Amino acid sequence: MIVSNPELLAIQNSEVVPQLTLDCVIFGFHAGQLKVLLVKWKGTNFWSLPGGVVRQSESLNDAATRILTQRTGLVDIFLRQFHTFGDSNRYDKESVSEKLASVVPKHMWYDRAISVGYYALVNYAQVFPTPDEMSDSCEWRGLDELPELLFDHSEILKTALDYLRKEIAHQPVGLNLLPLKFTMPEMMRMYEAILGRKIDPRNFQKKILKSGIVIKSKEVKKGTAHRSPFFYYFDNKKYGEVLQSGSLFFI
Amino acid sequence: MIVSNPELLAIQNSEVVPQLTLDCVIFGFHAGQLKVLLVKWKGTNFWSLPGGVVRQSESLNDAATRILTQRTGLVDIFLRQFHTFGDSNRYDKESVSEKLASVVPKHMWYDRAISVGYYALVNYAQVFPTPDEMSDSCEWRGLDELPELLFDHSEILKTALDYLRKEIAHQPVGLNLLPLKFTMPEMMRMYEAILGRKIDPRNFQKKILKSGIVIKSKEVKKGTAHRSPFFYYFDNKKYGEVLQSGSLFFI
Repeated sequence: MIVSNPELLAIQNSEVVPQLTLDCVIFGFHAGQLKVLLVKWKGTNFWSLPGGVVRQSESLNDAATRILTQRTGLVDIFLRQFHTFGDSNRYDKESVSEKLASVVPKHMWYDRAISVGYYALVNYAQVFPTPDEMSDSCEWRGLDELPELLFDHSEILKTALDYLRKEIAHQPVGLNLLPLKFTMPEMMRMYEAILGRKIDPRNFQKKILKSGIVIKSKEVKKGTAHRSPFFYYFDNKKYGEVLQSGSLFFI
Repeated sequence: MIVSNPELLAIQNSEVVPQLTLDCVIFGFHAGQLKVLLVKWKGTNFWSLPGGVVRQSESLNDAATRILTQRTGLVDIFLRQFHTFGDSNRYDKESVSEKLASVVPKHMWYDRAISVGYYALVNYAQVFPTPDEMSDSCEWRGLDELPELLFDHSEILKTALDYLRKEIAHQPVGLNLLPLKFTMPEMMRMYEAILGRKIDPRNFQKKILKSGIVIKSKEVKKGTAHRSPFFYYFDNKKYGEVLQSGSLFFI
């Protein structure tokens, strides 16, 4: 098999940090659901998280930003490193090289690789999902409609979600997931989608308003079944301050 | 220079994951101060955090545990991975290989290395600081008496401390840092040492007692200047539950 794609060529030419990869859990919020961006490996029916290698010349953060931009089309992304996965048996080389034999030559698989996990929160409507050189599709999937994932990517996804759930207990979230204006029920549904459980609406609204991170607009959302709810938007300055101080106490 | 120490031999024989290291920020609490364990490189006056390489056969966690046990003599350690440091210019190969020329042959330095950061909380009195093959001393230093550190280790230490400060806002701490029995002022001083600021004693005691993680003993500490304070000890079961749920709200 002649290697022609840039990523494999870079590995072959030792232009990357060996035995190191980067995997990205890209979260979006749509139709009341938390979704994650997945890629399907070329000519196979195997899915994984988007990811890639780290070039010798780039930092981990630069590599993550590059991969995220390539998969989503976005340039300014909310991105956090959350955990590095370093078990020596993260994948079975024999099994995975067989499954993906049409994409990656068998001799190019490392016996093991360490993967740095990043998660990103993006605006669903602005994303243009784009497959990479080794995949033939890149698609959103709801958390309750996930296919089986290759490698330890189910664990990476679960860890990212655990991390996000912990984060939103003391940090604001939504600037990157919600549209510019949103109603209080929409914002609450986002929290419920992340937490995977119902929350008390009255308490929620009280805490959000008290935090000062949202501003009520004069506009109402029309065409809803019940009385028209007001639109809110984020106070970017206050949001940034609370993000910095980590002083939003929730749950 | 003939390589004789086991770590360098392992690197030379490709028994380690290349361009990957692990650095440990080991915190202890003594005499009202938060301290960190440092090593001084053999025959030099240069200090760094304890660290090491990751063998091909071991997981990241196993490598961290191995390094921590070797440096402290402890086997059951509270240990957390907190961040992976991956800037391409984390150290200047020329400068560092010159400073440490008597310890590591120049050709053995990678152009760059990615380092996985772990922090540990240990009981100061139980630690037996032990230098590794490349250092000739291993010592505790208070946070306000730190020497200049090699590589990006000052940043790694600062990041670990930031992480710990964030953690203690919603997780209990102390089981690993305090002796088996302690007074309320001693526990408060531990929090103050971590946070680097004074806290309100009345509010502190109220919150700690409300959390249920400590139990008041019948014994008082004698020989203190003021009235004798009671000893407390941790309720291990409750402590574990609160640690699991992350529901301790503090600061």
